[in-house]
Amino acid sequence: MLVLGIDPGTATTGFGLIRNLNNGDLESVSYGVITTPKKTLPEERLLSIYNEVIQLLTLHSPDMAAVEKLFFQRNVTTALAVGQARGVVLLALAQKKIPLAEYTPMEIKQAVAGYGGAEKNQVQLMVKALLNLEDIPRPDDAADALAVAICHCQSYRFKHLESLSL
Amino acid sequence: MLVLGIDPGTATTGFGLIRNLNNGDLESVSYGVITTPKKTLPEERLLSIYNEVIQLLTLHSPDMAAVEKLFFQRNVTTALAVGQARGVVLLALAQKKIPLAEYTPMEIKQAVAGYGGAEKNQVQLMVKALLNLEDIPRPDDAADALAVAICHCQSYRFKHLESLSL
Repeated sequence: MLVLGIDPGTATTGFGLIRNLNNGDLESVSYGVITTPKKTLPEERLLSIYNEVIQLLTLHSPDMAAVEKLFFQRNVTTALAVGQARGVVLLALAQKKIPLAEYTPMEIKQAVAGYGGAEKNQVQLMVKALLNLEDIPRPDDAADALAVAICHCQSYRFKHLESLSL
Repeated sequence: MLVLGIDPGTATTGFGLIRNLNNGDLESVSYGVITTPKKTLPEERLLSIYNEVIQLLTLHSPDMAAVEKLFFQRNVTTALAVGQARGVVLLALAQKKIPLAEYTPMEIKQAVAGYGGAEKNQVQLMVKALLNLEDIPRPDDAADALAVAICHCQSYRFKHLESLSL
């Protein structure tokens, strides 16, 4: 199963593709960020993000996508800007008929680092360890996207095991 | 010049198409709302909004679009949801290469009712009067969309006159 984690933002949208192998291992396929120039019009930036996400989806055909569920943004202007970027990402997923799962920051930390109150750095070290990467994935938005993808793989496996034991 | 005013929202997106005639009159071409069912997944709702907006743009080919500039939303959850809907609307406009103008609520009230602190009802009565409509346009989101389109027409005319007098 190929899972795409996305962390949308107007300036930087992180993405991380993870393969959930049958033996339970997780394998990083690709990760990185989509960036848009600050001086560009908001609608042009949204168009760039949308086009890049569509390209990612066309290239890799992920089975599932996962994004962070956002309840508390630091401020309203940020929430609006993140919302706009999130909107075009969700649209691209819906157009390509890729099922979407959402996880709270606490669920992600719990799944990746084993503790819902884990620090950012602990989560990043666990992302590196779980995916057998040589270094902590950079930039932060890419690491965040991998973390939500890992969370989805763990959650999926757990639900699968649960259904087998019923 | 045909101007599309849009008031994006996840549940209800208002739209209003206005023709700016050469004699200075404004003519309502079409107005209404795009609605999405509450029980549908957020990404499916965004897909519906996007598809309906694309259809509007294809059908009417507006020369310009105008949306309300949002600074202060009542709460962060609303800002995120409005942002998502706004994101797919801006994307559709960028894809169809329709230039976008943004106006603050105060600019809209000033342009439509002649006073930046005008009440909602005063603005709606002026929308009715300026467009020679028999009734106040309903629902509110459609009236809001017409108001931002009127604001753009007035602002465009003002800038045009200003450039002629230079």
